[in-house]
Amino acid sequence: MKKNENREPLCDDIAGKDCGLKRVIDTVGGKWKIMILCVIDRNEIVRYGELRRSIHGITNTMLANSLKELEADGLVERKQYDEMPVRVEYNLTEKTKTLIPILLELKKWGEGNL
Amino acid sequence: MKKNENREPLCDDIAGKDCGLKRVIDTVGGKWKIMILCVIDRNEIVRYGELRRSIHGITNTMLANSLKELEADGLVERKQYDEMPVRVEYNLTEKTKTLIPILLELKKWGEGNL
Repeated sequence: MKKNENREPLCDDIAGKDCGLKRVIDTVGGKWKIMILCVIDRNEIVRYGELRRSIHGITNTMLANSLKELEADGLVERKQYDEMPVRVEYNLTEKTKTLIPILLELKKWGEGNL
Repeated sequence: MKKNENREPLCDDIAGKDCGLKRVIDTVGGKWKIMILCVIDRNEIVRYGELRRSIHGITNTMLANSLKELEADGLVERKQYDEMPVRVEYNLTEKTKTLIPILLELKKWGEGNL
């Protein structure tokens, strides 16, 4: 097979853990996490209950697990205010804010091509 | 919740079928399809058997189904040469070539942030 040697390959190591694209897909792939990032991006700071109501079809378990993983990966920040009832708010981290413009490009590509 | 009204929202309609980002995720989301696009991008033209050997862990069924869907969505082209044995080759379509630079940005983001 002819190699595209003159330009940067998309993946040097297909399926390898060192591929940055694979890491992105593993981390935010799947529709729930992208949707969660969308809702937080649109609103800057979002309460748990607002997220739950904004994403049709998501269960409490899926939302709670997705948020825990996004927090562990440093993509969202969780802030808990010890009021009564307890208030929990989520916002995007700085590094996630640099991901948003790339997702916007993907979105435009999808609108034009799919 | 405070709205990010001064800039383009990532998704107007969360989970809506009209969101271009959701269409991209639905179309190439999941690790196999991205990997298939990676291998074809790297080699320009790839035979079925080469794809099968390049992607560790993929089964014949998953590869064949993924390729059929990618072809139906206009992302890859399949060319069959009626030799003995039959030769089947795949290449990226022009619109997919415009997706690759965005995937490269995602890859770089992943390398720097995950």
